[in-house]
Amino acid sequence: MSKPARRRPGRRPGSADTRGEILAAARRVFAEKGFDKATVRGIAKEAEVDPALVHHYFDTKAGMFAAAMQLPITPDDVIPLVVEGPREELGERLVRFLLGVTAAPETREPLVALIRSAMTNEPAAAMFREFITNAVLFQVADRLGVPHLRIEAAFGQMLGVILARYVLELEPIAGASEDELVELLGPTIQRYFTV
Amino acid sequence: MSKPARRRPGRRPGSADTRGEILAAARRVFAEKGFDKATVRGIAKEAEVDPALVHHYFDTKAGMFAAAMQLPITPDDVIPLVVEGPREELGERLVRFLLGVTAAPETREPLVALIRSAMTNEPAAAMFREFITNAVLFQVADRLGVPHLRIEAAFGQMLGVILARYVLELEPIAGASEDELVELLGPTIQRYFTV
Repeated sequence: MSKPARRRPGRRPGSADTRGEILAAARRVFAEKGFDKATVRGIAKEAEVDPALVHHYFDTKAGMFAAAMQLPITPDDVIPLVVEGPREELGERLVRFLLGVTAAPETREPLVALIRSAMTNEPAAAMFREFITNAVLFQVADRLGVPHLRIEAAFGQMLGVILARYVLELEPIAGASEDELVELLGPTIQRYFTV
Repeated sequence: MSKPARRRPGRRPGSADTRGEILAAARRVFAEKGFDKATVRGIAKEAEVDPALVHHYFDTKAGMFAAAMQLPITPDDVIPLVVEGPREELGERLVRFLLGVTAAPETREPLVALIRSAMTNEPAAAMFREFITNAVLFQVADRLGVPHLRIEAAFGQMLGVILARYVLELEPIAGASEDELVELLGPTIQRYFTV
């Protein structure tokens, strides 16, 4: 048993819990204000830490959102992957990446949980809507010069296929190989990115 | 107040309630057994009516399912619309039809409710899965000679767009005109139907 004198005097910057406390505060603030209106400063205040410390743990608000929602990927991972590399292979690259992320239950489930809650309650829908458009889809679209409507059509294709494959579990799409799906869906996504 | 002698002696074939009672029984049987294993005979037994009476109200099991779930459209409406008419306009025709059905809240909401429940509990998922594949998608695919996987890719596209437009309410797709969406999505659907 440790001596009383060795007890830590409450929460301290950089303590083992600080990151977890910031994420818990982030979840409360995102749920209350949505993604757009939440600020690093507001989350720091809620967590009772200095904003500089929040920045120490999380580079961007989008990264903090992804961590708070336990998403396996952040926009900072996805955007370079889509934007870099040959433009004519973008469809295939994106389909392959999304199928890879959603193949394993431990990376798929947090994404599905976020979509499920967005489909069943309006505050969660607002939070998801602001995050997926402003932090992900529009970022990609603007860097590639693709209209927002076209990237949302591509998002709709991948959302529907992932739901059909993993949530509704429709056969044969649930049991199709990654290569079959890349061949089927790649040209669709490529077309939406070809203005 | 009506006289006791005029009271109806319980449930009678063809009474004002019979159709509603059959539908209530159908909902119970579909929920318990799923779409595939439910039978007209089993639903008639649950409703305590003659199977012939069930057939009098509903031509097909799929039609009964659509009525029980208060769906605005039955497979018997959709299948001819997709299968008949010029094959090269199928994509546009299907997109326009689905956008039309989902535009008005009173026809959209029962469909969204069915998808929501299929996404959040497994018995509802099983029921939806069996209905949408065996009674809708495979019927269309087989009549047109299109592989099942391709029609599920088309289903995924339309499912994702309808969720993005009406449930997640992402802009600009939520506010896009029907013509814009037909132009954007029609060629995708057409490609999946072109083997």
